[in-house]
Amino acid sequence: MSYFQSIGNIQYEGKGSDNPLAFKHYNPSEIIMGKTMEEHMRFAVAYWHTFTGSGSDPFGEGTSSRTWDHSDAMDTAKARVEANFEFLDKLGLPYYCFHDRDIAPEGATLQETNRNLDVIVELLEQHMRTSGKKLLWNTANMFTNPRFVHGAGTTCNADVYAYAGAQLKKSLEIGKRLGAENYVFWGGREGYETLLNTDMAFELDNLARLFHMAIAYSKEIGFDAQFLIEPKPKEPSKHQYDFDAATTIAFLQKYGLHNHFKLNLEANHATLAGHTFEHEIRVAAINGMLGSLDANQGDLLLGWDTDEFPTDLYATTLTMYEVLKAGGLGKGGVNFDAKVRRGSFEDEDLFLAHIAGIDSYAWGLKAAAKLIEDRVLDGVVERRYRSFNEGIGADIAAGKATLHTLEQYALQNLPIRNESGRQERIKLILNEVIFSV
Amino acid sequence: MSYFQSIGNIQYEGKGSDNPLAFKHYNPSEIIMGKTMEEHMRFAVAYWHTFTGSGSDPFGEGTSSRTWDHSDAMDTAKARVEANFEFLDKLGLPYYCFHDRDIAPEGATLQETNRNLDVIVELLEQHMRTSGKKLLWNTANMFTNPRFVHGAGTTCNADVYAYAGAQLKKSLEIGKRLGAENYVFWGGREGYETLLNTDMAFELDNLARLFHMAIAYSKEIGFDAQFLIEPKPKEPSKHQYDFDAATTIAFLQKYGLHNHFKLNLEANHATLAGHTFEHEIRVAAINGMLGSLDANQGDLLLGWDTDEFPTDLYATTLTMYEVLKAGGLGKGGVNFDAKVRRGSFEDEDLFLAHIAGIDSYAWGLKAAAKLIEDRVLDGVVERRYRSFNEGIGADIAAGKATLHTLEQYALQNLPIRNESGRQERIKLILNEVIFSV
Amino acid sequence: MSYFQSIGNIQYEGKGSDNPLAFKHYNPSEIIMGKTMEEHMRFAVAYWHTFTGSGSDPFGEGTSSRTWDHSDAMDTAKARVEANFEFLDKLGLPYYCFHDRDIAPEGATLQETNRNLDVIVELLEQHMRTSGKKLLWNTANMFTNPRFVHGAGTTCNADVYAYAGAQLKKSLEIGKRLGAENYVFWGGREGYETLLNTDMAFELDNLARLFHMAIAYSKEIGFDAQFLIEPKPKEPSKHQYDFDAATTIAFLQKYGLHNHFKLNLEANHATLAGHTFEHEIRVAAINGMLGSLDANQGDLLLGWDTDEFPTDLYATTLTMYEVLKAGGLGKGGVNFDAKVRRGSFEDEDLFLAHIAGIDSYAWGLKAAAKLIEDRVLDGVVERRYRSFNEGIGADIAAGKATLHTLEQYALQNLPIRNESGRQERIKLILNEVIFSV
Amino acid sequence: MSYFQSIGNIQYEGKGSDNPLAFKHYNPSEIIMGKTMEEHMRFAVAYWHTFTGSGSDPFGEGTSSRTWDHSDAMDTAKARVEANFEFLDKLGLPYYCFHDRDIAPEGATLQETNRNLDVIVELLEQHMRTSGKKLLWNTANMFTNPRFVHGAGTTCNADVYAYAGAQLKKSLEIGKRLGAENYVFWGGREGYETLLNTDMAFELDNLARLFHMAIAYSKEIGFDAQFLIEPKPKEPSKHQYDFDAATTIAFLQKYGLHNHFKLNLEANHATLAGHTFEHEIRVAAINGMLGSLDANQGDLLLGWDTDEFPTDLYATTLTMYEVLKAGGLGKGGVNFDAKVRRGSFEDEDLFLAHIAGIDSYAWGLKAAAKLIEDRVLDGVVERRYRSFNEGIGADIAAGKATLHTLEQYALQNLPIRNESGRQERIKLILNEVIFSV
Repeated sequence: MSYFQSIGNIQYEGKGSDNPLAFKHYNPSEIIMGKTMEEHMRFAVAYWHTFTGSGSDPFGEGTSSRTWDHSDAMDTAKARVEANFEFLDKLGLPYYCFHDRDIAPEGATLQETNRNLDVIVELLEQHMRTSGKKLLWNTANMFTNPRFVHGAGTTCNADVYAYAGAQLKKSLEIGKRLGAENYVFWGGREGYETLLNTDMAFELDNLARLFHMAIAYSKEIGFDAQFLIEPKPKEPSKHQYDFDAATTIAFLQKYGLHNHFKLNLEANHATLAGHTFEHEIRVAAINGMLGSLDANQGDLLLGWDTDEFPTDLYATTLTMYEVLKAGGLGKGGVNFDAKVRRGSFEDEDLFLAHIAGIDSYAWGLKAAAKLIEDRVLDGVVERRYRSFNEGIGADIAAGKATLHTLEQYALQNLPIRNESGRQERIKLILNEVIFSV
Repeated sequence: MSYFQSIGNIQYEGKGSDNPLAFKHYNPSEIIMGKTMEEHMRFAVAYWHTFTGSGSDPFGEGTSSRTWDHSDAMDTAKARVEANFEFLDKLGLPYYCFHDRDIAPEGATLQETNRNLDVIVELLEQHMRTSGKKLLWNTANMFTNPRFVHGAGTTCNADVYAYAGAQLKKSLEIGKRLGAENYVFWGGREGYETLLNTDMAFELDNLARLFHMAIAYSKEIGFDAQFLIEPKPKEPSKHQYDFDAATTIAFLQKYGLHNHFKLNLEANHATLAGHTFEHEIRVAAINGMLGSLDANQGDLLLGWDTDEFPTDLYATTLTMYEVLKAGGLGKGGVNFDAKVRRGSFEDEDLFLAHIAGIDSYAWGLKAAAKLIEDRVLDGVVERRYRSFNEGIGADIAAGKATLHTLEQYALQNLPIRNESGRQERIKLILNEVIFSV
Repeated sequence: MSYFQSIGNIQYEGKGSDNPLAFKHYNPSEIIMGKTMEEHMRFAVAYWHTFTGSGSDPFGEGTSSRTWDHSDAMDTAKARVEANFEFLDKLGLPYYCFHDRDIAPEGATLQETNRNLDVIVELLEQHMRTSGKKLLWNTANMFTNPRFVHGAGTTCNADVYAYAGAQLKKSLEIGKRLGAENYVFWGGREGYETLLNTDMAFELDNLARLFHMAIAYSKEIGFDAQFLIEPKPKEPSKHQYDFDAATTIAFLQKYGLHNHFKLNLEANHATLAGHTFEHEIRVAAINGMLGSLDANQGDLLLGWDTDEFPTDLYATTLTMYEVLKAGGLGKGGVNFDAKVRRGSFEDEDLFLAHIAGIDSYAWGLKAAAKLIEDRVLDGVVERRYRSFNEGIGADIAAGKATLHTLEQYALQNLPIRNESGRQERIKLILNEVIFSV
Repeated sequence: MSYFQSIGNIQYEGKGSDNPLAFKHYNPSEIIMGKTMEEHMRFAVAYWHTFTGSGSDPFGEGTSSRTWDHSDAMDTAKARVEANFEFLDKLGLPYYCFHDRDIAPEGATLQETNRNLDVIVELLEQHMRTSGKKLLWNTANMFTNPRFVHGAGTTCNADVYAYAGAQLKKSLEIGKRLGAENYVFWGGREGYETLLNTDMAFELDNLARLFHMAIAYSKEIGFDAQFLIEPKPKEPSKHQYDFDAATTIAFLQKYGLHNHFKLNLEANHATLAGHTFEHEIRVAAINGMLGSLDANQGDLLLGWDTDEFPTDLYATTLTMYEVLKAGGLGKGGVNFDAKVRRGSFEDEDLFLAHIAGIDSYAWGLKAAAKLIEDRVLDGVVERRYRSFNEGIGADIAAGKATLHTLEQYALQNLPIRNESGRQERIKLILNEVIFSV
């Protein structure tokens, strides 16, 4: 059966098209800097927002009712599998990703919950085989159920920690079975509500222990996905431990985990932490930690995670610029961790919103490639730092300078000539480049 | 001569007093948990705000005119030395701290600048000898002069980097000569205005190189101060590299610098980064990086560094609670990196504001000691985490659990019972404790 | 039957008490500045948070399960009525308040919905009669149901507007029947998601029309409650029309509504708008628009409405100071629009949290009274503005000055002497006052 | 003499050009929707940022040294006049604007200050006559001088108020003499630092009195400029009275001033208040209060007024869309209240930054015109609200509905069908429009 009967396959029609259900920029097979757009992006659909989201918010009930909703939870779960692959197929996207609780409902016992998962995973496996669609990553939802009220890997309750471990074990097995290319840890409740009742040191030790167990078990079962941590500064907890890229790197370094993990960075999480998305990507990249991207956008005048579909071309361009400069996403991809607005409750909006996000990223990729090929920013940077190519500058860059040699140089009192950083002009040029693709 | 003739020595008069020029809470020799208040706090006056600040802001000229201002810059510098020691004396505080450019004006050449410094350092040394006052820390101002427009240790201009190295060398020598107990690095312009023209990786490499040079040179001259980095997320630059405690720790770990540095944490910098001050102290403490404190407070409804004198008793109590729990500040201290409001432009305000800050910290120390001695929060925490004292919890805490053992435990489906975190009640109790000291 | 069997009546036991289920500051019959504490405060319990809230958040399911929850919605609704009056009784509070949808479930038709309401309103009426408890205000929930996805009074859909009108009519009738002393309008979805698809002028015109209809109908049925608008800047919508007190006043003035409305101000809404709560109260007071208060507190490091129980004594003191200076709350009161934290899910937390809020407000009231009786701030203010008591200042204040007379005065070039605003000292004194009551 | 010898006249060269010193979008004589671009925009250069700004910030000295700087303040002032008209000429812009203290230094007495002004105003007048350049607006700087530490029109010191009145009188006379088309009031220090020492009601009364005096005096001297108030929420003061458009309108309405004033809206002030710029323009427009624009942009991740040259095409497009829909700016214009970044300290940056801003606004104008001519958004809006064109909707819009008629309609229980708001698609279309002009 079809869940999106009225909607045909979304094709590339190019810039002139005014067909709302067509790509104007995303041409999967188009070659950009030696790779197809599909290979650059490795777009994934987010199961949770697209197939389980309802449009509810803290002040209102869900607004969408989907054709795959049934009164029986397992029936709904099965129908969502069908809808997912139909959706991937119609959009021509290669990947999807999910939390365990997105795909199957919890049962009365952990055993029953796991059996529910087995049924659905079997179904997913069949569909993946026939469709060729792949799993970018899976993860365990250890934040929605009330048992995780005080955290999972950082809970104050050992029983909850044990439960989290069991859930994680099952998720790693599912990842293995479905050939997940990555496995994501987002610490939804790993943080605190108030320091007044919290033993942060103990909680972080425990979190690191859980990660070490995950590494050991994955090795045991031969699950070779890239492990990813997804930083977020706050929400739902008052303060999340994986605040941002740098905080997460500090944690991984401290506990000897940094060779086993990379980062899954999210645009809206970056801005909630006071950073641009490109900043977070740069931080990850220069630390060898760039893993995968959650593509969305926040509203900088709002203080919560709005998870909007990305349409800001400045952001998509600078994101893809950082990605290209970092050598690409490797095993990672671009996952739309974005939800249609509560007011965009029609099925068609699911397509329109993904098209908006995909086309905006494709546009950004093309603009970024142009920035690189024309050496727009590289030229600026090389010229700016050229004083480090010779003389005292070269000594500094080579690690040969000392405070003595620097002082000797400075005491000559040669006139110091700085040059303008030319920000305003660079920004105007950026407009021209984004525009001209 | 006296700069504060109308004001006598500030004495402890206790809670009943309505003398505005007396301490009501700070009694330097009072013993709290085995140490005097003076030893706990190690209060320092900030030379820059108190003796060089004028009350100017981006929209207005300075409002205060001080009796130590002269038309000749060196005369002013000398007068400030007098004022500083008179001020320390009248408040009965043991420490002060400064940037190099606070104490002496720049000359036409680096040589002249250094000669100016030598003159003033000589004077400071004399006053320290006779007064017994000490230097909590010194630092180099590498952000005010236009030459540092694009950074100092992270500049794009090798000549500027060399100048910074020379300035740093001189500052280390001054610290050595004056017996500074700490040496602070605050990266005023170490960050970026826009990533579009910035090579972040190269800049951070260079910054690390400069720190390594500072370590080598300090060793060479036998300067054994504790090195401190002071995080700040933004301002003046759009994005400072030492964003917060965790970011700074990640940087230090990456470059093998973490055994040589601790952190100088500032309250207002914490809140600009989206953290409470107590969070930053906790992060530093559990990483063995707690160095010293810049005591002030920001206005959480404003987005810039207001550097207000600290008067919020919640903040001072929780700050001192973290400090006491971490075992104290060691070689560090509590420095008032706080400026009188632009509208508090009278000399007397310098005293009143310091009294407000000192009394608020003393109050906080007493409340924190009570929290600890009565085990108000420790009792809460121990009870909350008690499930890790035996059984599966003890296994987890001992690092003996695996995903297998956790799963086995969880599959028993024992009912999970969480307990309330009791935040609301704890906050009311906190009120009672702060009140009752 | 009893829903809170294990909990006795909450009594005033005074400061020494360490009974967590007792008031230490709130003594309802204690006289403060000529009125009892109960008369000053007119505390109200918020039906929605206390009896319908579950602790769910955007990332997690509800954590509390209450003894009044039944499988049948009307049975639950009836049980909540019982619970409400038992709760009011045990806490000794005089008022409650509700949205229509808090008290009774929606039916399949508007008729059925209204019948459900009639049943519950009948029950409420009986309980009010026997208990003497009163309704501080009621309101209509026109934001939770999906039909209000694009607004109610500002919807783009005339059918929805009509429905909102019908719902409002019924709510006014309920208010009349239950003797509500106020009627509140909070524009939960009255705002926009994006200006790109919004006709703001038309929407505001329609909103004003609805208010005029409400006035007319209330007059018709003899419902003499004070009408209140509750400002909020954002959330759930991207931008709410009643952004803050000033915005709401501008709207009311424009549409000739300002004589019919006052404001219901909420602490957390104030801070989300970038104001302190005391600012919003002052703005309302000096415009004759102070109506009633939603007492809670936000977390200034978080960007959403956390609706925490108020425990910050600075905030409660300054709130009550503004209220006392404004002559009190009149027909309004202090309603705890606050929810227990998700982690405070036990029934006992409902009591502990209310006690925390009530005691913090009582403490604030006493501190505020002391500020006034000792003329702590009034003395400061009078002295600061004393130059307007005579000469040119008196002319200005009397409206007799012109630019000519001001220039003549200024051209005398008398030395202008400003005085320090003494903020730091005032804040220290505030500490002393708060903590000495 | 020439201050910008190396730079020729900036010409329109169109999109292909890679000449950094040419317009690629701004073609002054090009007709857009019936008016030339010059007539739409009425661009003005801001004297303060361009000719008196130095690049200083709270952490650093100025970085630029300009050829018009002299040791004598009046010589500098005269040179700035020359530079201003050369700059206007080279950029081909019709307007400039200034604060009194931008153009001439204060003297030892008010008489001397006014004489300095007379000298410079004479010079400006001559240049205006010969060049044909015009004054978009002038204003009085009543915030930089220390005398205004506690405000000007809202000071607590009557002597200061008198001085402000005298300064305002002179400014109105200057505006009259130079034919200023508008006169601006920006309340730089009209706000408070803390409510604890502030009589807000009295201060606002006094402010209104000053505005009434200004109206009276302007009438007396026949100065018919449009009066404008410029809202800003905070900075330099903790809370500015003219927080945003709505707050200012409430104030003007309360004091019977709204027929005498319109608003001068600034982009960066809007975002500091939590609004988009287009929101503020819409609010002004639907209240008949749209006066003039301060064009710049802020950094939404920073909490202070960065006053950057506008380069964000989303913002410029939506700004000009609102302006066109409101019927244009009338006597107002678009003034670049923007400063080159501290790192853009070369004279050439003054041109490059203005070109960036001008071209971005020209681009935005063209995109906005296309949005209107193609009815891109109007079509969306009309379709969305079409239910108000007939039946109950038409009754509502005509003010004929009552709660009775609405209830009767709703009780029919016709199925309510909402439609998607289609935000995601609209945003993608917006991209296409902006980038196709």
